[in-house]
Amino acid sequence: MYIKRGIIKELGKSLRRLSSAKRVAIITDKNLSRIYGAQVLNVLNSAGFETDVIAIEPGEKSKTLATLADVFEGLVKSRITRRDIIIALGGGVVGDLGGFAASSFLRGMPYVQVPTSLIAQVDSSIGGKVAVDLPQGKNLVGSFYHPEAVFIDPDFLDTLDAREFSNGMAEVIKYGCIKDRQLFEELTGFDKNELLNNIETIIFKCLSIKKKFVEEDETDQGARMMLNFGHTLGHAIEKYYHYAKYSHGEAVAVGMYRVTKNSEDMGLTEPGTSQRLKEVLSKYGLPYEMPAGNAAEIVEVIAMDKKNKGDSIDIVLLNSIGDGFIKNINKDEIPRFFL
Amino acid sequence: MYIKRGIIKELGKSLRRLSSAKRVAIITDKNLSRIYGAQVLNVLNSAGFETDVIAIEPGEKSKTLATLADVFEGLVKSRITRRDIIIALGGGVVGDLGGFAASSFLRGMPYVQVPTSLIAQVDSSIGGKVAVDLPQGKNLVGSFYHPEAVFIDPDFLDTLDAREFSNGMAEVIKYGCIKDRQLFEELTGFDKNELLNNIETIIFKCLSIKKKFVEEDETDQGARMMLNFGHTLGHAIEKYYHYAKYSHGEAVAVGMYRVTKNSEDMGLTEPGTSQRLKEVLSKYGLPYEMPAGNAAEIVEVIAMDKKNKGDSIDIVLLNSIGDGFIKNINKDEIPRFFL
Repeated sequence: MYIKRGIIKELGKSLRRLSSAKRVAIITDKNLSRIYGAQVLNVLNSAGFETDVIAIEPGEKSKTLATLADVFEGLVKSRITRRDIIIALGGGVVGDLGGFAASSFLRGMPYVQVPTSLIAQVDSSIGGKVAVDLPQGKNLVGSFYHPEAVFIDPDFLDTLDAREFSNGMAEVIKYGCIKDRQLFEELTGFDKNELLNNIETIIFKCLSIKKKFVEEDETDQGARMMLNFGHTLGHAIEKYYHYAKYSHGEAVAVGMYRVTKNSEDMGLTEPGTSQRLKEVLSKYGLPYEMPAGNAAEIVEVIAMDKKNKGDSIDIVLLNSIGDGFIKNINKDEIPRFFL
Repeated sequence: MYIKRGIIKELGKSLRRLSSAKRVAIITDKNLSRIYGAQVLNVLNSAGFETDVIAIEPGEKSKTLATLADVFEGLVKSRITRRDIIIALGGGVVGDLGGFAASSFLRGMPYVQVPTSLIAQVDSSIGGKVAVDLPQGKNLVGSFYHPEAVFIDPDFLDTLDAREFSNGMAEVIKYGCIKDRQLFEELTGFDKNELLNNIETIIFKCLSIKKKFVEEDETDQGARMMLNFGHTLGHAIEKYYHYAKYSHGEAVAVGMYRVTKNSEDMGLTEPGTSQRLKEVLSKYGLPYEMPAGNAAEIVEVIAMDKKNKGDSIDIVLLNSIGDGFIKNINKDEIPRFFL
């Protein structure tokens, strides 16, 4: 895991230290290919790699088996072998789909992640979860497969629009909430400039927390659950609106606030926590209120999602800022915690 | 690994000992579903499992990403969770495709293999290699993923046609050649009845040899190469005829004989070995001669297949019956060994 402004300029040399590959196949999306393609090819060619670019359409709608088939075709045409290497250069969609392609092409190719969005840099690029969606649901086909390395260059964030930046900030705030009070305080205090000046450290803190939970729970059986703070309701919100109205981060923001407000009212969370959370979410352009009118139906989505999973579910609450815990609740209590 | 005549009748109880699953999804092909479907559902239902059958079209032409997408759809509809279990009931195609589906659905489901063809029982059902084909080549997409158990019932062989039985016998003979002289001698001596009476032991011997090589070389980097005796030329023959004219076993039979005859002529193999091999191949209905007229073109396929793999390749030869070894040869020597 390498985090450094401008690290992309050294990608060729860094990769050369990792691999004796002759060829590199770069899986990316068409927007990124247009903005960064020439630069990336240049640094790789300079380091002696033969390169091919496989560019998919941008957006979650590309995270399908059909796009995966196109990527496999591109990989065959690139004539890479198991001694070569794949780069997944992009946000969450490219990382998930490219990672799954790498995990299964020739029964598993070495690959590196170069996450370009804030949410991918602080969250999805590590942990080894790679997947594509099926028409019936997200991330239903995939594997656990780790990259050889993750190269995180905050310079990519310069071309991110404000909403996409906020999308990532929701996960940053989440890490502060569940495990790092100091990070949360910093987020509260920073202005935009200070935030960007400290972004390397912030990304490092987030990934260190994630890494710790992932290492305790490689295949997602228990401890990793803590990373789902705000996600139980967040996923329901995303799904209710068919992944069109709320970004992942926006939905998680609402999910974090709602469950914390309710648990605070029940006396499970230190008083004032939800107020502080609300302020920091607003500061970073994120919503916190449940959509008026549809709240009850959204909460029903949680129960439907969990209907094959026994009588109780695990949810994540905060004792206080920086101190999350997992609570097993009866399914009857879902509205009490989320509505 | 359980090998026993009639073991399928106990599949429900055996699976119950392995798993607390509520549901079982059975991936199979339409022929097998017709012949064995009712029986298998019956033993599983009796053991308290809820069952769904996902039946694909029989044959290698089903080993595609498109069929895989259909299987995923069936798995979604079956509503199985990661606490449930998948059964791959069939020959090599079902085992490879069903195993890959199990490895990637919900990022990996527990599954068991119930191989029904001789070649699957002695070879493809263990080793953890699962895959589908791409239009550009066989087994290009897959993973290394082990079943919870393999249930091998030789009673399935009763419904196998003669050519398909011979297909499996080529691999049985291969195991004798590379590692088990006594097995080879038995195959030479047995009549058809004796062979069938001893089939449990024969399958056990083959799988024990495979298991040993696989454990030494989980991800196919070296020692596993020994299992490729006859396969370098065999694959070229299959590919040259677009997988239509020769079965895998028939192509491997020709491959084993040809390379052994040549290595014997070079003094690398004990005299008489190729003659003994020829006799046992003929006895089990397998060819040994290269197709007249096309031999040179077929051997060129080997070089084309290996063109991205450096100047030399590893091939498998016999010192004598029961004693295989790996030899690194220069690519210029390919015709000398295979033509």
